[in-house]
Amino acid sequence: MSGSEAVAKPGITVLASKISKEYVDEITKKVEALKSIRPEGPLLVGFLANGDPAAEMYASWTKKTSESMGFRYELRRVDEKDFLEEAIIEANRDDAVDGIMVYYPIFGNAQDQYLQQVVAREKDVEGLNHVYYQNMYHNIRYLDNEKQLKSILPCTPLAIVKILEYLKIYNTLLPEGNRLYGKKVVIVNRSEIVGRPLAALLANDGAIVFSVDVNNVQKFTRGESLKFIKHHVEDLGPYSEDLLKQCCADADVIITGVPSPKYKFPTEYVRDGTVCINFSSEKNFDDSIKTKASLYVPMTGKVTISMLLRNMLRLIENAEKVKAKN
Amino acid sequence: MSGSEAVAKPGITVLASKISKEYVDEITKKVEALKSIRPEGPLLVGFLANGDPAAEMYASWTKKTSESMGFRYELRRVDEKDFLEEAIIEANRDDAVDGIMVYYPIFGNAQDQYLQQVVAREKDVEGLNHVYYQNMYHNIRYLDNEKQLKSILPCTPLAIVKILEYLKIYNTLLPEGNRLYGKKVVIVNRSEIVGRPLAALLANDGAIVFSVDVNNVQKFTRGESLKFIKHHVEDLGPYSEDLLKQCCADADVIITGVPSPKYKFPTEYVRDGTVCINFSSEKNFDDSIKTKASLYVPMTGKVTISMLLRNMLRLIENAEKVKAKN
Repeated sequence: MSGSEAVAKPGITVLASKISKEYVDEITKKVEALKSIRPEGPLLVGFLANGDPAAEMYASWTKKTSESMGFRYELRRVDEKDFLEEAIIEANRDDAVDGIMVYYPIFGNAQDQYLQQVVAREKDVEGLNHVYYQNMYHNIRYLDNEKQLKSILPCTPLAIVKILEYLKIYNTLLPEGNRLYGKKVVIVNRSEIVGRPLAALLANDGAIVFSVDVNNVQKFTRGESLKFIKHHVEDLGPYSEDLLKQCCADADVIITGVPSPKYKFPTEYVRDGTVCINFSSEKNFDDSIKTKASLYVPMTGKVTISMLLRNMLRLIENAEKVKAKN
Repeated sequence: MSGSEAVAKPGITVLASKISKEYVDEITKKVEALKSIRPEGPLLVGFLANGDPAAEMYASWTKKTSESMGFRYELRRVDEKDFLEEAIIEANRDDAVDGIMVYYPIFGNAQDQYLQQVVAREKDVEGLNHVYYQNMYHNIRYLDNEKQLKSILPCTPLAIVKILEYLKIYNTLLPEGNRLYGKKVVIVNRSEIVGRPLAALLANDGAIVFSVDVNNVQKFTRGESLKFIKHHVEDLGPYSEDLLKQCCADADVIITGVPSPKYKFPTEYVRDGTVCINFSSEKNFDDSIKTKASLYVPMTGKVTISMLLRNMLRLIENAEKVKAKN
């Protein structure tokens, strides 16, 4: 009991490439099967307008990854941010374009949220359209009453769900929709793009989620809403180290997404055996986490891009169904 | 020339109540004419979930104003912010509700932008739906290809356009769409809700607009877009007192919307005879502005509420047209 330092720490680092493998195979097969309607492969267009070298890197990596699975990828550089909206609208209207993604931030403020809604819902592979978010928050799986057109999920939160499935945090002995029952998850990030939707998704699947940002800590649970199947949110109080420590004390999973090179999650708050996942492009855990975490996923990008391409295939399926109907 | 202090300053303060009078009369008549389909008056529902006494005041004033024109107004208080989304969705679905407004801020962050999109487009009297903004930015006036359903404009920017019309800044000798040709306008605020759309609206009507925020100064002009009738934006540089001073030197109109009691626009930058309008709920100009401004509009709320109610009538007209068609 007392000699815990001497006990072997059999923690394992799990790479996103390993997690994404099954999806890569699945997607590659599906793209192959699409040859009859997309002989040259589906076309994904990425818009780069921020001149950010990191975004350039990400773009060339998206190109490589998507092409390796049989997609075509076209990077469109827009010199003036102000022209991006028109460029997106042009791609919305272009039948040759199957999917559209934008390398954010562009303006780095609320105008980016405006742009996200400019991308046609039918080509929004990132799943940023308001309809997709609203459906996600309310557990609505289809876009139409006939349940023919599947709604898609924002690709980063979806990727983290898939990672949690891979890591067996989702318990398949439990019924679907309740497979996180009994699990406690800490999420350090409450952005509208990832942190809040992720908290809702996990709560909708039965977890208790502690959602942490610089301002406060909130508890997401499934709740007992009368009218909608929807998560419930409770304020636990302003952010403090103590409160974070409390939340971590019996957390099964800690997920971080703080976009700062300076931020490090305090390893000393992590109990032995916690599953730790970082979705920030910065390294939010330092290496000491390996002495505590049972499973540690240092980066998630490769799973995210798989989900994005999976979304794209779903959008193409939807488009074909709409065409067949008309 | 040198004794300018001694010259009479015939500046006039114009109250929003005076500007809104013609709209109040027009709206009241239209509501009366709607008696056949809305015998008890159209129903506007306001949602209050922030417990803010200022919002309470604004709500009771909305109630009084709208009831005086023949509308019914119902304030719905939502105790927990987290329940607001469901309350809005309920109102979206309720045929008895004609219009919905929300007293923002609720969360005070990007989640408010999510909520704005939850309000059904057909009942969004404030005109905050993405479709309305996108139509506004692109000078699109209708929601349908048949040009039966009129798009609406966000109510605060619209109110300021109406104020500029009343003040004869819009020159009716010029053709519609070019009535601000030759005018220079400074706008201190570039929010997604008011400042940026307003700058675009005025640029679309031919003005040169200097859009100022804490970060930088941008110049909005109509531009010569190949594919869309749309404003053009140019960065003039980071914000500085000097740059602001330059922009004001030959400005015809200065419009402020800084939501802080501490902020005062420097009267010394205002040239004699400038038209000054403040749409912030705080007093952005101090009284010395009266020695400089030819026309000074210290508050705009009463025009805004008129535009909101006018939007509501338009939405009811649209709904009736859709009904007649089906």
